[in-house]
Amino acid sequence: MKITVIGPGAMGLLFGGKLAACADVSLVGSNVRNLEEINAKGVTIKRGDSSVTRMVPAYRGGSCSEPADVVMLFTKAYQIRDVLTENRRLIGPDTLLLTLQNGAGHDRVMREFADSAHVLIGTTKQGSSRESASVIINSGLGETVFGGTAAEGEQGPDPARMEELRSVFETAGFPCAVSDNIRFEVWNKLMINASASVLSGVLQVAQGYVAENESAWSICQDLIREICLAAAGEGAVFDPEEQILRVREHLRNAPGGFTSIYSDLKNGRKTEADFICGAVVRAAQDQGLRVPVQETILRLVHAMEER
Amino acid sequence: MKITVIGPGAMGLLFGGKLAACADVSLVGSNVRNLEEINAKGVTIKRGDSSVTRMVPAYRGGSCSEPADVVMLFTKAYQIRDVLTENRRLIGPDTLLLTLQNGAGHDRVMREFADSAHVLIGTTKQGSSRESASVIINSGLGETVFGGTAAEGEQGPDPARMEELRSVFETAGFPCAVSDNIRFEVWNKLMINASASVLSGVLQVAQGYVAENESAWSICQDLIREICLAAAGEGAVFDPEEQILRVREHLRNAPGGFTSIYSDLKNGRKTEADFICGAVVRAAQDQGLRVPVQETILRLVHAMEER
Repeated sequence: MKITVIGPGAMGLLFGGKLAACADVSLVGSNVRNLEEINAKGVTIKRGDSSVTRMVPAYRGGSCSEPADVVMLFTKAYQIRDVLTENRRLIGPDTLLLTLQNGAGHDRVMREFADSAHVLIGTTKQGSSRESASVIINSGLGETVFGGTAAEGEQGPDPARMEELRSVFETAGFPCAVSDNIRFEVWNKLMINASASVLSGVLQVAQGYVAENESAWSICQDLIREICLAAAGEGAVFDPEEQILRVREHLRNAPGGFTSIYSDLKNGRKTEADFICGAVVRAAQDQGLRVPVQETILRLVHAMEER
Repeated sequence: MKITVIGPGAMGLLFGGKLAACADVSLVGSNVRNLEEINAKGVTIKRGDSSVTRMVPAYRGGSCSEPADVVMLFTKAYQIRDVLTENRRLIGPDTLLLTLQNGAGHDRVMREFADSAHVLIGTTKQGSSRESASVIINSGLGETVFGGTAAEGEQGPDPARMEELRSVFETAGFPCAVSDNIRFEVWNKLMINASASVLSGVLQVAQGYVAENESAWSICQDLIREICLAAAGEGAVFDPEEQILRVREHLRNAPGGFTSIYSDLKNGRKTEADFICGAVVRAAQDQGLRVPVQETILRLVHAMEER
């Protein structure tokens, strides 16, 4: 199976590096120095005391001309359209596009490049942090889930090909399942990202503070209720009070954790808020509903990014 | 006229120092070193190249036992209840309580200490910044306006006494008017404070950024619309679109300005948000209305104060 991973960051290197054990993997990126280092040293994956290094060819975006069987996206969410445009030649009539990126709404962009039978979205509980351009530390070994997003009446991805891909993931060491309700999984993950994570970024605090501070927790609960409202319209039905308890539990289990939106805002970088809160706002708008707290937080993040 | 000014900060020293030219003024504060310096050196008011120093006795809170004719409040808004409790002996049956503090809702607290015939609220366009414990720089010479807050059927303050007080202000060098619709004046000032000012604090930017940045300006417009909604229920009717233009004009005229809520959040101090956004939220609640953007911003400020 020919797999091209676009975005050789922490997660891209983890999946690219491990999948290379049982598939024909290429990496595609934009930072020339990083690509040179990957090509010279291979991809090293550390976990505990062990370390594995595999050679994986890394190319500049736009330089590959043959379609892949699977194109996996691990760029920042807001870069999807640009990287797919640049690497359009990777996408043939049979190429599956897969993203495991945080947030929702990626498939809307991916559908500009492939039909409903070839777009897969998913989530993963794998964790990865980058030590250098070619070295990552694999933390967290949780499940990866993916599935198709075809609407009623549209053709979904071929089950045999999804099973084949799932099997490659398993062989490479990623516990994996195909879901026939992948939107539920995506919203389930968004539940924390579009509430506590974004709020800890806006407040510039560790995530535990969101559950500890009365005012922050009050906003967080409003955000969760609005996510449930928006998700219901996409066929993902959640009980808000159950979700509030789940998010609080999550925060209390790792109070010292910092989210990527926290680091992005701290370091003056663009965040993925448009695919986090933005996904909630869009899903609500599609149903003619208002989610004023999400709307306010989303605009605040943008105003903070642009300072 | 015996006038006691509680809160010898920048504004308290300005009013206390100038009123001492034509009234029997005392200052009441809590910082013993500052009070000693005021008693030793007098209050100095600088403006341009000129400078005036007047001796004004300064006392610790709770140490005065005789009622004043007028008690003026220049503490932080959230300290009103505490300082009036501590200095209850200053308030006799004929004492007028007056605040010119930013925000709305102060009269609710003042009414716990005096009846509708003795509570005055107002606004001032005087500006003052403190150079030391006893020295201030007077910037801005705009009008001071005050008036009673009696509801329908309640007795308002004696017009003759209000005129007498207005005349003392004028003699002391404060252009002054008595208003029979003082709530309008208060909401008029709140229009900027509960929108652009608080937002520049939350975003930690100069106020001009609020009008320049698309996302920030979008939130600001929502805040203004919500203020207009809340104000209408208090008898202060504004056209939201006119107010949006007015606030933008204000921001464009002084884009580099920083608000007190900005400094308070920057320096980890408690803000007056409860009397700014909080006043809008309370006024809306009294009418059974929701102002979700104000509610979100108010809770964010609290979550930021408590970090």
